[in-house]
Amino acid sequence: MSNVLNKHRAKYLEGKTANYIPALAQVNPSLAGVAIATIDGDVVGAGDSRVPFSIQSVSKIFGLVMAMNRLGDDLWQRVHMEPSGQAFNSIIQLEWEKGIPRNPVINAGALLVADVLVSHYSASKLAVLNYVRRLADDESVFIDNAVFESELKHGSRNAALTYLMKSFDNIEASVPEVLDHYFTQCAITMSCEQLAKSMLFLANKGKNPCTGERVCSKKDAHRINAILSTSGMYDQSGEFAFSVGLPAKSGVGGAIVAIVPNYGVICAWSPPLNGFGNSVVGKHIIADLAEELGLSIY
Amino acid sequence: MSNVLNKHRAKYLEGKTANYIPALAQVNPSLAGVAIATIDGDVVGAGDSRVPFSIQSVSKIFGLVMAMNRLGDDLWQRVHMEPSGQAFNSIIQLEWEKGIPRNPVINAGALLVADVLVSHYSASKLAVLNYVRRLADDESVFIDNAVFESELKHGSRNAALTYLMKSFDNIEASVPEVLDHYFTQCAITMSCEQLAKSMLFLANKGKNPCTGERVCSKKDAHRINAILSTSGMYDQSGEFAFSVGLPAKSGVGGAIVAIVPNYGVICAWSPPLNGFGNSVVGKHIIADLAEELGLSIY
Amino acid sequence: MSNVLNKHRAKYLEGKTANYIPALAQVNPSLAGVAIATIDGDVVGAGDSRVPFSIQSVSKIFGLVMAMNRLGDDLWQRVHMEPSGQAFNSIIQLEWEKGIPRNPVINAGALLVADVLVSHYSASKLAVLNYVRRLADDESVFIDNAVFESELKHGSRNAALTYLMKSFDNIEASVPEVLDHYFTQCAITMSCEQLAKSMLFLANKGKNPCTGERVCSKKDAHRINAILSTSGMYDQSGEFAFSVGLPAKSGVGGAIVAIVPNYGVICAWSPPLNGFGNSVVGKHIIADLAEELGLSIY
Amino acid sequence: MSNVLNKHRAKYLEGKTANYIPALAQVNPSLAGVAIATIDGDVVGAGDSRVPFSIQSVSKIFGLVMAMNRLGDDLWQRVHMEPSGQAFNSIIQLEWEKGIPRNPVINAGALLVADVLVSHYSASKLAVLNYVRRLADDESVFIDNAVFESELKHGSRNAALTYLMKSFDNIEASVPEVLDHYFTQCAITMSCEQLAKSMLFLANKGKNPCTGERVCSKKDAHRINAILSTSGMYDQSGEFAFSVGLPAKSGVGGAIVAIVPNYGVICAWSPPLNGFGNSVVGKHIIADLAEELGLSIY
Repeated sequence: MSNVLNKHRAKYLEGKTANYIPALAQVNPSLAGVAIATIDGDVVGAGDSRVPFSIQSVSKIFGLVMAMNRLGDDLWQRVHMEPSGQAFNSIIQLEWEKGIPRNPVINAGALLVADVLVSHYSASKLAVLNYVRRLADDESVFIDNAVFESELKHGSRNAALTYLMKSFDNIEASVPEVLDHYFTQCAITMSCEQLAKSMLFLANKGKNPCTGERVCSKKDAHRINAILSTSGMYDQSGEFAFSVGLPAKSGVGGAIVAIVPNYGVICAWSPPLNGFGNSVVGKHIIADLAEELGLSIY
Repeated sequence: MSNVLNKHRAKYLEGKTANYIPALAQVNPSLAGVAIATIDGDVVGAGDSRVPFSIQSVSKIFGLVMAMNRLGDDLWQRVHMEPSGQAFNSIIQLEWEKGIPRNPVINAGALLVADVLVSHYSASKLAVLNYVRRLADDESVFIDNAVFESELKHGSRNAALTYLMKSFDNIEASVPEVLDHYFTQCAITMSCEQLAKSMLFLANKGKNPCTGERVCSKKDAHRINAILSTSGMYDQSGEFAFSVGLPAKSGVGGAIVAIVPNYGVICAWSPPLNGFGNSVVGKHIIADLAEELGLSIY
Repeated sequence: MSNVLNKHRAKYLEGKTANYIPALAQVNPSLAGVAIATIDGDVVGAGDSRVPFSIQSVSKIFGLVMAMNRLGDDLWQRVHMEPSGQAFNSIIQLEWEKGIPRNPVINAGALLVADVLVSHYSASKLAVLNYVRRLADDESVFIDNAVFESELKHGSRNAALTYLMKSFDNIEASVPEVLDHYFTQCAITMSCEQLAKSMLFLANKGKNPCTGERVCSKKDAHRINAILSTSGMYDQSGEFAFSVGLPAKSGVGGAIVAIVPNYGVICAWSPPLNGFGNSVVGKHIIADLAEELGLSIY
Repeated sequence: MSNVLNKHRAKYLEGKTANYIPALAQVNPSLAGVAIATIDGDVVGAGDSRVPFSIQSVSKIFGLVMAMNRLGDDLWQRVHMEPSGQAFNSIIQLEWEKGIPRNPVINAGALLVADVLVSHYSASKLAVLNYVRRLADDESVFIDNAVFESELKHGSRNAALTYLMKSFDNIEASVPEVLDHYFTQCAITMSCEQLAKSMLFLANKGKNPCTGERVCSKKDAHRINAILSTSGMYDQSGEFAFSVGLPAKSGVGGAIVAIVPNYGVICAWSPPLNGFGNSVVGKHIIADLAEELGLSIY
């Protein structure tokens, strides 16, 4: 694992750290880590695998599981599960499809999910944090307030997406509340090891392999993996399926989490992003590990 | 398998047989068949599993394998591998993306592939037919001339797509030649059993399990399955991954072929289509079989 | 004029009163009025020509003149003057053109103008009201608070447009302030006679013919008439130019104001709208008067 | 007039001669001419006002008049009269609006008009040429065969537009015939003086002022001027109305023809184009003349 990390580490120079908010732009671009957690309970890491970072869009998975558990299949009346064929923050398709987001892992869809959580939990922000801490089995997971404030301040596009959905009556709570929840969720801060561990239920048919606790139904674990396969890597999802072959989710903080069904979870992290918003180094690391270990699901 | 077929058979009334060409509109809508071919060499069928039908867009897979083998990775300079988020015959995205089709299994992409074949084979139409016959190990596979003529006559939209690509210098041959090849390929006529058998290499890491012959590299078999997973079911691909969990390709003739890696291929057929252009009964059959046999790849 | 009014009056049944806010939906749909004000100082009316109504988008002209006077040609760096080819409240083109509205008389453009006014006047809402009162030479012009409140409550789409522009750094003030100004302006309440009179400067090379006061430069009067000709009637602007041939602006309150250069202004009003958001009866009245009096500018 | 021409002549360096076909790219970019024909019968020119050039899209007006005369108002079932808000050769809007072109002076609309002519004249190409010769009162007007051949060879995008309309059943003739007519029409070759003269009927309520012959009804002359005002200058039409204020049509050959109702016609020509496809020098010349002579219609 170290060798793969070292092989690709220098490629961080080919990417650009997300700069739309100051809090993300300040992260040291040369940091890089990778961790594998298996359903047998092993967690191994290399590089900066214990350095916490902003998980950003990876948090969409946590919100989604919670909303699926709360709303059941009614959720799919309000958000679809088709790949978008558009940039992650596109407003065009949302207009075409009358306020129904294409899937829950583009921004519009995750904002819709945030609306579900705000409307169904008395303290949705705390609920998500606690949920993640339990999944990671680690109370040190925290919300980075500087990141949160920074995103809120630069959140005009997400506000536009949410107001547009509201104009189609697809948002129940007030828009500021939805944005407040959403940016809080994005500001969750975790390390590669924590993230890999917290997602193991997706590799294990919905059950947390450490505690034996059921996080979601087997069917829903399959469904989330399916959504990640077609849509988890923004508008590079097809290429990622094509060249790597694993369900995965990336975040503009530089993380990529890939699920290996019946085996475990790989999390790679390096802040600089390619033009699609995916970590340059992270993608290389996961591609190599997937090939080396023969992990493609296809 | 018969019980699954019988359970869903009557649902053909919920769909509409493709009527844009007379030759397809005339098919008896109540016909329905299903076949499973396994990499161990078994082929079992139920219902009208030996009745030949027009395979239409399922043929895109055959063309794609041939083009990948001929052109290697250069192919991906001329066609991408992202899901489209648009109808299968949309011209809008082709304009946005300057004549590069989103993937090889929407019409624009398959027309691009047809251009590759026309340009690299002296007799590309015959070459495809022979290729399919060898894969199916069956010389009775044929091209339905009435379907071909009918499509050519109603082929204005496909002509528009091809001319638009040509205007971006992404078509090498003459447009009429490309269309001639494309419609010939679409008019290939096969049964469920033949189709299932002919696709076994995709479930078997690129090797034809019957003959041991390598059809494509292991990597390319993975890649094709990845493309089918994100894009094979038109604009219902996400939903199909979500609810079924198998790489699959459908055709407006009413066929759906689903690949089960390391196991085999399921082909279901019933002419009436849903609003996305996918066989109503076929989708139900494959969904039930996949669930019953626990085949989801996710 | 009465005969033209009476000829078309019953056609209000073919339209639908704007119902997106309760305050507009309650207006009696059978009301109808028309007034002509000439640059010679005559004002003649027929029907309900003195009944006040919500002028809605007609107010975009007042805001535009004020912003042009304040900002000069710098305004055209932030909003273009091209017809949109899209619905009046479309967000798609705003995304394509990176937050620069196509013209100042679609919603996005008028919200941009509102931002200019909010940023350049200490009390922009009062300023607009006073401006209009002076143009109409009538202190009874007022802002309907029920309409204002109602619009604010149902203003999600306009909020989405404004936040999207802000995300492209094309909004200076806070979004709630901009919306507050915009909805206030829309809620200005006037009669046909008042509206016709207040727009005379556009028919008179920029000068108020009653007071002799210069409202805007001759050049800017031409420019506003040009914008109204290509874009004033929403996505029916081309058809209106084609069949009527006058610069005009409509509002969802049911008003249409048409400028006749060097002659005067016609204002017709009847609440029920056609599918483009233009008053059914109002359009018929103005078309007939324009033909009868030979007023087409083309 | 010479002074205006000389003032702007050197600006041809700011533009780029159309280079999509060799025949146009070869024209000397420093040529420039201007002519005014008045309804009183005067024709005055300056610079290269008698040098013939390819009139290209200006020919759309001739085709349109002929089709309006033949089909009457039925024409407007097959083509609309709204500005497009898109580039002149966009295929996107044609798809959205199901094969009905936005207006008759974008490419799709002119191709539709060509289909009307092909279907209603036994020798439509000759008919157009004779029509133009009569309007210009000059038998020397001719079709440049090299331009025609060149366009046909590079006509893939226009073929795509036509096939797309045909797929919506909005083209009656065969596509190659339509293209043949269209490119012939585009290849008509005239000078500024000839063009100005041939359009006088539009400034004269539909009557040819020289012969007294009625070319079209007064209403149709108004309508064509209205279409030119909202759509004649491609996606710069709004700006042209805003800054010049005259109905006008440009062609990629470098011509701009502007109609001055009840006065005459101005034709300016200089090959290099701006980013919208309009002659750089031509636009400056017409803007200056319109301002100097106070010709704005608004």
